Amino acid sequence: MKSFTEYLWFNTPTRRGLVNITEEIGAVVGKSGVREGLCLVSAMHITSAIWVNDEEPGLKEDVMEWLEKLAPVADYRHHRTGEDNGDAHLKRTVMHHQTILPITKGALDLGPWEQVFYAEFDGKRKKRVIIKILGE
Amino acid sequence: MKSFTEYLWFNTPTRRGLVNITEEIGAVVGKSGVREGLCLVSAMHITSAIWVNDEEPGLKEDVMEWLEKLAPVADYRHHRTGEDNGDAHLKRTVMHHQTILPITKGALDLGPWEQVFYAEFDGKRKKRVIIKILGE
Amino acid sequence: MKSFTEYLWFNTPTRRGLVNITEEIGAVVGKSGVREGLCLVSAMHITSAIWVNDEEPGLKEDVMEWLEKLAPVADYRHHRTGEDNGDAHLKRTVMHHQTILPITKGALDLGPWEQVFYAEFDGKRKKRVIIKILGE
Repeated sequence: MKSFTEYLWFNTPTRRGLVNITEEIGAVVGKSGVREGLCLVSAMHITSAIWVNDEEPGLKEDVMEWLEKLAPVADYRHHRTGEDNGDAHLKRTVMHHQTILPITKGALDLGPWEQVFYAEFDGKRKKRVIIKILGE
Repeated sequence: MKSFTEYLWFNTPTRRGLVNITEEIGAVVGKSGVREGLCLVSAMHITSAIWVNDEEPGLKEDVMEWLEKLAPVADYRHHRTGEDNGDAHLKRTVMHHQTILPITKGALDLGPWEQVFYAEFDGKRKKRVIIKILGE
Repeated sequence: MKSFTEYLWFNTPTRRGLVNITEEIGAVVGKSGVREGLCLVSAMHITSAIWVNDEEPGLKEDVMEWLEKLAPVADYRHHRTGEDNGDAHLKRTVMHHQTILPITKGALDLGPWEQVFYAEFDGKRKKRVIIKILGE
Protein backbone atom coordinates (compact mmCIF):
# COMPACT_ATOMS: atom_id res chain seq x y z
CA MET A 1 0.00 0.00 0.00
CA LYS A 2 1.09 3.51 -0.81
CA SER A 3 0.03 6.85 0.57
CA PHE A 4 0.92 10.28 -0.74
CA THR A 5 0.10 13.78 0.52
CA GLU A 6 0.40 17.19 -1.06
CA TYR A 7 -1.02 20.62 -0.23
CA LEU A 8 -2.15 23.16 -2.81
CA TRP A 9 -2.02 26.84 -1.80
CA PHE A 10 -4.46 29.49 -2.99
CA ASN A 11 -4.65 33.25 -2.67
CA THR A 12 -7.43 34.34 -5.01
CA PRO A 13 -7.38 37.93 -6.29
CA THR A 14 -11.13 38.26 -5.74
CA ARG A 15 -13.31 37.42 -2.76
CA ARG A 16 -15.26 34.76 -4.67
CA GLY A 17 -14.25 32.55 -7.53
CA LEU A 18 -13.90 29.12 -9.06
CA VAL A 19 -10.42 27.80 -9.88
CA ASN A 20 -10.12 24.68 -12.05
CA ILE A 21 -7.59 22.40 -10.33
CA THR A 22 -8.13 19.20 -12.34
CA GLU A 23 -4.69 19.31 -13.96
CA GLU A 24 -2.84 20.01 -10.71
CA ILE A 25 -4.57 17.05 -9.08
CA GLY A 26 -3.73 14.83 -12.06
CA ALA A 27 -0.09 15.82 -11.72
CA VAL A 28 -0.08 14.91 -8.02
CA VAL A 29 -1.61 11.53 -8.86
CA GLY A 30 1.17 10.96 -11.40
CA LYS A 31 3.83 11.89 -8.85
CA SER A 32 2.32 9.53 -6.24
CA GLY A 33 2.93 6.45 -8.37
CA VAL A 34 -0.45 5.04 -7.24
CA ARG A 35 -2.09 2.97 -10.01
CA GLU A 36 -5.36 1.99 -8.30
CA GLY A 37 -6.75 3.98 -5.41
CA LEU A 38 -8.67 6.90 -3.96
CA CYS A 39 -7.67 10.56 -3.98
CA LEU A 40 -9.16 12.88 -1.35
CA VAL A 41 -9.26 16.58 -2.27
CA SER A 42 -10.43 18.63 0.71
CA ALA A 43 -10.52 22.37 1.45
CA MET A 44 -8.78 23.01 4.78
CA HIS A 45 -10.48 26.39 5.34
CA ILE A 46 -14.12 26.62 6.26
CA THR A 47 -15.19 29.27 3.76
CA SER A 48 -14.13 27.40 0.64
CA ALA A 49 -15.30 24.25 -1.11
CA ILE A 50 -14.51 21.68 -3.77
CA TRP A 51 -17.00 21.45 -6.65
CA VAL A 52 -17.05 18.80 -9.39
CA ASN A 53 -18.86 20.07 -12.44
CA ASP A 54 -18.54 21.52 -15.93
CA GLU A 55 -15.86 23.93 -17.21
CA GLU A 56 -18.43 26.19 -18.87
CA PRO A 57 -18.28 29.95 -18.17
CA GLY A 58 -22.05 30.50 -18.19
CA LEU A 59 -22.68 27.67 -15.74
CA LYS A 60 -19.93 28.95 -13.45
CA GLU A 61 -21.69 32.33 -13.29
CA ASP A 62 -25.03 30.57 -12.78
CA VAL A 63 -23.82 28.60 -9.79
CA MET A 64 -22.33 31.65 -8.06
CA GLU A 65 -25.53 33.66 -8.59
CA TRP A 66 -27.63 30.75 -7.36
CA LEU A 67 -25.51 30.38 -4.23
CA GLU A 68 -26.06 34.07 -3.51
CA LYS A 69 -29.82 33.39 -3.53
CA LEU A 70 -29.57 30.28 -1.32
CA ALA A 71 -27.04 31.75 1.13
CA PRO A 72 -27.06 35.53 0.71
CA VAL A 73 -24.70 38.12 2.10
CA ALA A 74 -26.63 39.28 5.17
CA ASP A 75 -26.30 40.19 8.82
CA TYR A 76 -25.42 36.92 10.56
CA ARG A 77 -24.86 36.25 14.28
CA HIS A 78 -21.38 35.11 13.29
CA HIS A 79 -20.55 38.74 12.53
CA ARG A 80 -20.63 39.61 16.24
CA THR A 81 -17.14 38.06 16.30
CA GLY A 82 -15.90 40.78 13.93
CA GLU A 83 -16.10 38.52 10.87
CA ASP A 84 -18.23 39.46 7.85
CA ASN A 85 -18.23 36.11 6.05
CA GLY A 86 -21.29 34.29 7.42
CA ASP A 87 -22.58 33.74 3.90
CA ALA A 88 -19.28 32.09 2.90
CA HIS A 89 -19.66 29.41 5.60
CA LEU A 90 -23.14 28.61 4.26
CA LYS A 91 -22.21 28.69 0.57
CA ARG A 92 -19.38 26.26 1.28
CA THR A 93 -21.89 23.97 3.02
CA VAL A 94 -24.14 23.79 -0.07
CA MET A 95 -21.16 23.09 -2.35
CA HIS A 96 -19.50 20.61 0.05
CA HIS A 97 -15.87 20.99 0.96
CA GLN A 98 -14.36 17.85 -0.46
CA THR A 99 -14.43 15.15 -3.08
CA ILE A 100 -12.93 11.69 -3.51
CA LEU A 101 -11.59 11.00 -6.99
CA PRO A 102 -11.02 7.43 -8.18
CA ILE A 103 -7.61 6.51 -9.61
CA THR A 104 -7.55 3.77 -12.27
CA LYS A 105 -4.46 2.65 -14.23
CA GLY A 106 -2.41 5.49 -12.77
CA ALA A 107 -4.73 8.37 -13.70
CA LEU A 108 -7.85 10.16 -12.44
CA ASP A 109 -10.87 8.14 -13.56
CA LEU A 110 -13.27 10.98 -14.41
CA GLY A 111 -16.36 11.16 -16.60
CA PRO A 112 -16.22 13.06 -19.91
CA TRP A 113 -17.21 16.44 -18.41
CA GLU A 114 -16.09 16.13 -14.79
CA GLN A 115 -13.77 18.96 -13.79
CA VAL A 116 -12.67 19.75 -10.23
CA PHE A 117 -12.91 23.30 -8.92
CA TYR A 118 -11.62 25.05 -5.84
CA ALA A 119 -14.54 27.31 -4.86
CA GLU A 120 -13.54 30.38 -2.88
CA PHE A 121 -16.11 32.42 -0.95
CA ASP A 122 -13.83 34.56 1.22
CA GLY A 123 -10.55 34.94 -0.62
CA LYS A 124 -7.73 37.44 -1.00
CA ARG A 125 -5.76 35.48 1.59
CA LYS A 126 -3.71 32.31 1.81
CA LYS A 127 -5.66 29.07 1.99
CA ARG A 128 -4.85 25.41 1.58
CA VAL A 129 -6.33 22.27 0.02
CA ILE A 130 -5.06 18.83 1.01
CA ILE A 131 -4.65 16.05 -1.54
CA LYS A 132 -4.30 12.66 0.10
CA ILE A 133 -3.90 9.55 -2.01
CA LEU A 134 -4.25 5.95 -0.84
CA GLY A 135 -3.79 2.93 -3.08
CA GLU A 136 -1.34 0.56 -4.65
CA MET B 1 -4.38 -4.54 -0.19
CA LYS B 2 -7.07 -5.07 -2.78
CA SER B 3 -8.75 -2.70 -5.17
CA PHE B 4 -11.75 -3.38 -7.35
CA THR B 5 -13.56 -1.24 -9.92
CA GLU B 6 -16.90 -1.59 -11.64
CA TYR B 7 -19.09 0.77 -13.65
CA LEU B 8 -22.89 0.83 -13.52
CA TRP B 9 -24.71 2.10 -16.61
CA PHE B 10 -28.01 3.98 -16.53
CA ASN B 11 -30.46 5.15 -19.15
CA THR B 12 -33.53 6.31 -17.25
CA PRO B 13 -36.87 6.34 -19.12
CA THR B 14 -37.75 9.75 -17.61
CA ARG B 15 -35.75 12.96 -17.34
CA ARG B 16 -35.73 12.88 -13.52
CA GLY B 17 -35.82 9.98 -11.13
CA LEU B 18 -34.37 8.08 -8.21
CA VAL B 19 -33.06 4.54 -8.78
CA ASN B 20 -32.27 2.40 -5.72
CA ILE B 21 -28.86 0.82 -6.36
CA THR B 22 -28.14 -0.58 -2.89
CA GLU B 23 -28.38 -4.22 -3.99
CA GLU B 24 -26.20 -3.72 -7.06
CA ILE B 25 -23.51 -2.10 -4.93
CA GLY B 26 -23.72 -4.92 -2.38
CA ALA B 27 -23.21 -7.44 -5.17
CA VAL B 28 -20.10 -5.59 -6.38
CA VAL B 29 -18.74 -5.59 -2.83
CA GLY B 30 -19.29 -9.36 -2.67
CA LYS B 31 -17.51 -9.86 -5.99
CA SER B 32 -14.54 -7.73 -4.86
CA GLY B 33 -13.66 -10.09 -2.02
CA VAL B 34 -12.85 -7.08 0.19
CA ARG B 35 -13.71 -7.78 3.85
CA GLU B 36 -12.76 -4.42 5.43
CA GLY B 37 -12.58 -1.25 3.38
CA LEU B 38 -14.17 1.73 1.70
CA CYS B 39 -16.44 1.76 -1.35
CA LEU B 40 -16.68 4.93 -3.43
CA VAL B 41 -19.89 5.34 -5.46
CA SER B 42 -19.64 8.39 -7.72
CA ALA B 43 -21.76 9.72 -10.59
CA MET B 44 -19.50 10.31 -13.61
CA HIS B 45 -21.92 12.73 -15.29
CA ILE B 46 -22.46 16.21 -13.95
CA THR B 47 -26.25 16.28 -13.97
CA SER B 48 -26.75 13.28 -11.72
CA ALA B 49 -26.06 12.53 -8.06
CA ILE B 50 -25.85 9.83 -5.40
CA TRP B 51 -28.28 10.19 -2.50
CA VAL B 52 -28.29 8.11 0.69
CA ASN B 53 -31.69 8.16 2.33
CA ASP B 54 -34.95 6.29 2.87
CA GLU B 55 -36.75 3.96 0.42
CA GLU B 56 -40.12 5.62 1.06
CA PRO B 57 -42.21 6.72 -1.95
CA GLY B 58 -43.63 9.86 -0.29
CA LEU B 59 -40.20 11.09 0.76
CA LYS B 60 -38.80 10.43 -2.72
CA GLU B 61 -41.52 12.69 -4.18
CA ASP B 62 -40.86 15.25 -1.43
CA VAL B 63 -37.16 15.50 -2.21
CA MET B 64 -37.72 15.95 -5.94
CA GLU B 65 -40.35 18.67 -5.35
CA TRP B 66 -38.07 20.39 -2.83
CA LEU B 67 -35.13 20.35 -5.27
CA GLU B 68 -37.37 22.02 -7.86
CA LYS B 69 -37.92 24.86 -5.37
CA LEU B 70 -34.22 25.20 -4.47
CA ALA B 71 -32.92 24.87 -8.03
CA PRO B 72 -35.83 25.49 -10.41
CA VAL B 73 -36.07 24.96 -14.13
CA ALA B 74 -35.32 28.48 -15.42
CA ASP B 75 -33.43 30.44 -18.03
CA TYR B 76 -29.76 29.97 -17.11
CA ARG B 77 -26.66 31.43 -18.78
CA HIS B 78 -25.60 27.82 -19.37
CA HIS B 79 -28.40 27.56 -21.94
CA ARG B 80 -26.53 29.89 -24.31
CA THR B 81 -24.48 26.77 -25.15
CA GLY B 82 -27.61 25.09 -26.51
CA GLU B 83 -28.13 23.04 -23.34
CA ASP B 84 -31.39 23.28 -21.36
CA ASN B 85 -30.28 21.52 -18.18
CA GLY B 86 -28.90 24.32 -15.96
CA ASP B 87 -31.25 23.29 -13.15
CA ALA B 88 -29.88 19.72 -13.30
CA HIS B 89 -26.33 20.91 -12.58
CA LEU B 90 -27.60 22.79 -9.51
CA LYS B 91 -29.88 20.00 -8.25
CA ARG B 92 -26.96 17.57 -8.45
CA THR B 93 -24.89 20.04 -6.39
CA VAL B 94 -27.44 20.08 -3.53
CA MET B 95 -27.67 16.28 -3.51
CA HIS B 96 -23.89 15.73 -3.91
CA HIS B 97 -22.58 13.41 -6.55
CA GLN B 98 -20.93 10.70 -4.50
CA THR B 99 -20.83 8.69 -1.33
CA ILE B 100 -18.33 6.49 0.46
CA LEU B 101 -19.80 3.32 1.95
CA PRO B 102 -17.98 1.40 4.67
CA ILE B 103 -17.38 -2.32 4.17
CA THR B 104 -17.24 -4.47 7.33
CA LYS B 105 -16.94 -8.27 7.43
CA GLY B 106 -17.38 -8.46 3.67
CA ALA B 107 -20.62 -6.49 3.39
CA LEU B 108 -21.87 -2.90 3.21
CA ASP B 109 -22.03 -1.55 6.77
CA LEU B 110 -25.22 0.55 6.53
CA GLY B 111 -27.63 1.84 9.15
CA PRO B 112 -31.13 0.32 9.40
CA TRP B 113 -32.72 2.71 6.87
CA GLU B 114 -29.80 3.75 4.69
CA GLN B 115 -30.45 3.08 1.01
CA VAL B 116 -28.33 4.34 -1.87
CA PHE B 117 -29.99 6.06 -4.83
CA TYR B 118 -28.79 7.12 -8.23
CA ALA B 119 -30.49 10.52 -8.72
CA GLU B 120 -31.01 11.51 -12.33
CA PHE B 121 -31.83 15.10 -13.32
CA ASP B 122 -31.24 14.96 -17.08
CA GLY B 123 -31.85 11.41 -18.16
CA LYS B 124 -33.08 9.48 -21.19
CA ARG B 125 -29.47 8.91 -22.20
CA LYS B 126 -26.55 6.67 -21.24
CA LYS B 127 -24.72 7.61 -18.06
CA ARG B 128 -22.23 5.92 -15.78
CA VAL B 129 -21.51 5.53 -12.08
CA ILE B 130 -18.12 4.30 -10.88
CA ILE B 131 -17.80 1.92 -7.93
CA LYS B 132 -14.25 1.79 -6.61
CA ILE B 133 -13.41 -0.39 -3.64
CA LEU B 134 -10.23 -0.27 -1.57
CA GLY B 135 -9.49 -2.55 1.35
CA GLU B 136 -8.25 -5.92 2.45
CA MET C 1 -2.55 -2.14 5.38
CA LYS C 2 -4.64 -1.56 8.44
CA SER C 3 -8.34 -1.00 8.90
CA PHE C 4 -10.14 0.03 12.05
CA THR C 5 -13.84 0.53 12.83
CA GLU C 6 -15.63 2.16 15.72
CA TYR C 7 -19.20 3.34 16.25
CA LEU C 8 -20.17 6.47 18.18
CA TRP C 9 -23.60 6.50 19.81
CA PHE C 10 -25.75 9.61 20.23
CA ASN C 11 -28.97 10.36 22.05
CA THR C 12 -29.34 14.14 21.94
CA PRO C 13 -31.52 15.78 24.63
CA THR C 14 -33.09 18.10 22.02
CA ARG C 15 -34.61 17.37 18.63
CA ARG C 16 -31.99 19.46 16.78
CA GLY C 17 -28.41 20.21 17.64
CA LEU C 18 -24.75 20.23 16.72
CA VAL C 19 -22.33 18.07 18.73
CA ASN C 20 -18.60 18.66 18.26
CA ILE C 21 -17.00 15.21 17.82
CA THR C 22 -13.51 16.26 16.69
CA GLU C 23 -11.80 15.00 19.85
CA GLU C 24 -13.60 11.66 19.87
CA ILE C 25 -12.57 11.08 16.26
CA GLY C 26 -8.98 12.03 17.06
CA ALA C 27 -8.97 9.49 19.88
CA VAL C 28 -10.21 6.74 17.55
CA VAL C 29 -7.47 7.63 15.06
CA GLY C 30 -4.90 7.32 17.86
CA LYS C 31 -6.31 3.93 18.88
CA SER C 32 -6.21 2.66 15.29
CA GLY C 33 -2.45 3.00 15.02
CA VAL C 34 -2.83 4.26 11.45
CA ARG C 35 -0.14 6.83 10.55
CA GLU C 36 -1.16 7.69 6.98
CA GLY C 37 -4.66 7.14 5.73
CA LEU C 38 -8.28 8.14 5.37
CA CYS C 39 -10.95 8.27 8.07
CA LEU C 40 -14.60 8.02 7.06
CA VAL C 41 -17.10 9.56 9.50
CA SER C 42 -20.66 8.78 8.39
CA ALA C 43 -24.07 9.19 10.03
CA MET C 44 -25.89 5.83 9.91
CA HIS C 45 -29.35 7.37 10.39
CA ILE C 46 -31.01 9.32 7.62
CA THR C 47 -32.09 12.37 9.61
CA SER C 48 -28.63 13.35 10.82
CA ALA C 49 -25.49 14.66 9.15
CA ILE C 50 -21.78 15.35 9.57
CA TRP C 51 -20.73 18.99 9.20
CA VAL C 52 -17.18 20.31 9.05
CA ASN C 53 -17.04 23.95 10.04
CA ASP C 54 -16.26 26.46 12.78
CA GLU C 55 -16.77 25.99 16.55
CA GLU C 56 -18.41 29.43 16.90
CA PRO C 57 -21.74 29.68 18.75
CA GLY C 58 -23.17 32.45 16.53
CA LEU C 59 -22.40 30.56 13.34
CA LYS C 60 -23.89 27.38 14.77
CA GLU C 61 -27.17 29.24 15.38
CA ASP C 62 -26.93 30.81 11.92
CA VAL C 63 -26.62 27.48 10.16
CA MET C 64 -29.58 25.95 11.99
CA GLU C 65 -31.78 28.99 11.24
CA TRP C 66 -30.67 28.94 7.60
CA LEU C 67 -31.49 25.23 7.26
CA GLU C 68 -34.98 25.95 8.59
CA LYS C 69 -35.42 28.42 5.72
CA LEU C 70 -34.07 26.04 3.06
CA ALA C 71 -35.86 22.95 4.35
CA PRO C 72 -38.67 24.09 6.66
CA VAL C 73 -40.85 22.09 8.99
CA ALA C 74 -43.95 21.58 6.82
CA ASP C 75 -46.54 19.03 5.76
CA TYR C 76 -44.62 16.50 3.67
CA ARG C 77 -45.91 13.42 1.84
CA HIS C 78 -43.53 11.44 4.02
CA HIS C 79 -45.82 12.18 6.98
CA ARG C 80 -48.52 9.90 5.56
CA THR C 81 -46.37 7.08 7.01
CA GLY C 82 -46.94 8.46 10.52
CA GLU C 83 -43.54 10.20 10.62
CA ASP C 84 -43.27 13.95 11.22
CA ASN C 85 -39.62 14.44 10.25
CA GLY C 86 -39.71 15.19 6.50
CA ASP C 87 -37.74 18.40 7.08
CA ALA C 88 -34.99 16.44 8.86
CA HIS C 89 -34.38 14.25 5.79
CA LEU C 90 -33.97 17.39 3.66
CA LYS C 91 -31.80 19.29 6.17
CA ARG C 92 -29.48 16.32 6.36
CA THR C 93 -29.26 16.33 2.55
CA VAL C 94 -28.06 19.97 2.47
CA MET C 95 -25.48 19.32 5.19
CA HIS C 96 -24.34 15.95 3.73
CA HIS C 97 -24.16 12.92 5.94
CA GLN C 98 -20.46 12.12 5.90
CA THR C 99 -16.92 13.36 5.66
CA ILE C 100 -13.52 11.84 4.95
CA LEU C 101 -10.74 13.15 7.17
CA PRO C 102 -7.09 12.78 6.16
CA ILE C 103 -4.68 11.17 8.65
CA THR C 104 -1.05 12.34 8.47
CA LYS C 105 1.73 11.30 10.88
CA GLY C 106 -0.76 9.51 13.09
CA ALA C 107 -3.20 12.39 13.62
CA LEU C 108 -6.13 14.10 11.91
CA ASP C 109 -4.75 16.51 9.31
CA LEU C 110 -7.21 19.39 9.70
CA GLY C 111 -7.00 23.08 8.82
CA PRO C 112 -6.74 25.69 11.60
CA TRP C 113 -10.50 26.10 12.08
CA GLU C 114 -11.87 22.77 10.88
CA GLN C 115 -14.05 21.09 13.49
CA VAL C 116 -16.29 18.08 12.91
CA PHE C 117 -19.90 18.14 14.09
CA TYR C 118 -22.59 15.55 14.40
CA ALA C 119 -25.71 17.40 13.22
CA GLU C 120 -28.96 16.03 14.61
CA PHE C 121 -32.33 16.96 13.08
CA ASP C 122 -34.60 14.36 14.72
CA GLY C 123 -33.01 13.46 18.01
CA LYS C 124 -34.04 12.32 21.49
CA ARG C 125 -33.35 8.74 20.44
CA LYS C 126 -30.38 6.43 19.95
CA LYS C 127 -28.41 6.93 16.76
CA ARG C 128 -25.03 5.82 15.45
CA VAL C 129 -22.10 7.21 13.50
CA ILE C 130 -19.53 4.90 11.94
CA ILE C 131 -15.83 5.74 11.93
CA LYS C 132 -13.91 3.59 9.46
CA ILE C 133 -10.17 4.09 9.05
CA LEU C 134 -8.02 2.71 6.23
CA GLY C 135 -4.28 3.25 5.96
CA GLU C 136 -0.89 2.09 7.09
